[in-house]
Amino acid sequence: MEDLLTLALNLMGTFAFGLSGAILAVRKQMDLFGVLVLSVATGLGGGIMRDIILGHTPPATLTDWRYLAAAGLAGLLVFVWYRGVIHHGRFIIAFDAVGLSIFTVTGTTIAISAGLNPAPAVLLGMLTGVGGGVLRDVLGAEVPLIFRSEIYAVASILGAVIIILASQTGLSGIPAETIAAIATFGLRMISVRKGWRIPLAMPKPDSTC
Amino acid sequence: MEDLLTLALNLMGTFAFGLSGAILAVRKQMDLFGVLVLSVATGLGGGIMRDIILGHTPPATLTDWRYLAAAGLAGLLVFVWYRGVIHHGRFIIAFDAVGLSIFTVTGTTIAISAGLNPAPAVLLGMLTGVGGGVLRDVLGAEVPLIFRSEIYAVASILGAVIIILASQTGLSGIPAETIAAIATFGLRMISVRKGWRIPLAMPKPDSTC
Amino acid sequence: MEDLLTLALNLMGTFAFGLSGAILAVRKQMDLFGVLVLSVATGLGGGIMRDIILGHTPPATLTDWRYLAAAGLAGLLVFVWYRGVIHHGRFIIAFDAVGLSIFTVTGTTIAISAGLNPAPAVLLGMLTGVGGGVLRDVLGAEVPLIFRSEIYAVASILGAVIIILASQTGLSGIPAETIAAIATFGLRMISVRKGWRIPLAMPKPDSTC
Repeated sequence: MEDLLTLALNLMGTFAFGLSGAILAVRKQMDLFGVLVLSVATGLGGGIMRDIILGHTPPATLTDWRYLAAAGLAGLLVFVWYRGVIHHGRFIIAFDAVGLSIFTVTGTTIAISAGLNPAPAVLLGMLTGVGGGVLRDVLGAEVPLIFRSEIYAVASILGAVIIILASQTGLSGIPAETIAAIATFGLRMISVRKGWRIPLAMPKPDSTC
Repeated sequence: MEDLLTLALNLMGTFAFGLSGAILAVRKQMDLFGVLVLSVATGLGGGIMRDIILGHTPPATLTDWRYLAAAGLAGLLVFVWYRGVIHHGRFIIAFDAVGLSIFTVTGTTIAISAGLNPAPAVLLGMLTGVGGGVLRDVLGAEVPLIFRSEIYAVASILGAVIIILASQTGLSGIPAETIAAIATFGLRMISVRKGWRIPLAMPKPDSTC
Repeated sequence: MEDLLTLALNLMGTFAFGLSGAILAVRKQMDLFGVLVLSVATGLGGGIMRDIILGHTPPATLTDWRYLAAAGLAGLLVFVWYRGVIHHGRFIIAFDAVGLSIFTVTGTTIAISAGLNPAPAVLLGMLTGVGGGVLRDVLGAEVPLIFRSEIYAVASILGAVIIILASQTGLSGIPAETIAAIATFGLRMISVRKGWRIPLAMPKPDSTC
């Protein structure tokens, strides 16, 4: 039952990330193939990076066909029904936040199991959560969106830190993971609604660059 | 004999991909070093990505010096003789299609041997075929060319699917690999000659992005 | 004692690379989080790429928290004191050259130990030295600086070749590593002072690209 829930949430997250990749591809005027590639890269990218760094090869998302199917389906949906999909922006942000939460939690948990120390485990959990989106933006030749002052990766870090603190105090398993996922999801959604931003280093940087 | 043929074709593909990397480098006004780096990254990139994802480390193209030599030679050739090389555009496209075909076939075959399911194996075969070119464009800060509506990765997918179908029906080895390589090569070359394109998601996307 | 020296130099290099990543992030008007991500990616990127390619997972810089701390500290410093840091450009270039030297030497040495042949070992040593900077520029959506005609990667290659030659003639260990590091550091610093450039392939390339 618990595994089924984790699988369902993971597939939902993969699907949501796949949507975001496909939407960028359409905006960049890519063809059907480009849309599918970007939806798959965005949906599976974070997990693949995590597994490669930990040496868990071949990556888990490549040995279970359902992840590839979920991301590909998202790409197809956006290709045939772009105007419909972007009118549900609120839903997409929520789906994406679900993916961010789940991937952060599973990434951090797997990193701890692999013997990483707390700080690198947080880093790897965050990479699992945001990696697909970074790959999406690099392939689309854009400065990654996560660098643009929204509360996004910070929400991922919050979840990862909660997992670490729980494991350090002997707690773990479903209760800690649920709290961490809800914290990530909640911070992300509230910050979008309230328009919270992270401070910039300097308002008017050196104009020669 | 058969291994010698595979090696010769692989080296030819590496050389052709190396040419394409070096040509972009010259157009981007890079120096000699940049030309060599881009030719090596393009020539070896796809195979290295495949081996890293499968956990076959160190990657095969790094343990056999001839691959590095083939890619480096391509870079040198373009550096000293750029105008001559680009006047042979037809040859370059053909060489490149040879590389695409061979790398797709070897990538898919290796992915099956590593125990991947059909869909991920196709994905990895395609990544082996097109990965070097994607790396070339990312390093050159361009939207990857494979996203721009030509029949390129689709030809790679065709070859990978043929390998998968052959292996599922108990066929494999040289005959299946030859058919798959010819199919990829043929589709690519015919589509270039005929100017075939893949449909775009929408002709006039949202102009705010 | 010798290990302590290596550690100290490695941390200094990580810190210097972290500074360069954070400076690009501030110039790109990223927020605090983006500055930290770019400083960590630049500081740890080269070593992580090397370890992934060699199959040494999880990467060494992720299992020792001090690397992460050094890169993060550099990011924080730049965030709170950008104008102060960029006024010490000469120091930054020197720090960065220290990092380049150390990372090249350790990367090449580790590649030889992993059984790579000379040419791939030089390639991997150079990747260790310059990889973080390439990652920095790709994430910042810029054409990597190493492609822009300064003596940078060439200095790295010089150090790597010295390590290879020394190991081939039976020499190795601290003396060879010291000579290689000094050669890389010296060539880089002298070329900056003298304004040495690498020749471009052609001054006026095809303007259609």
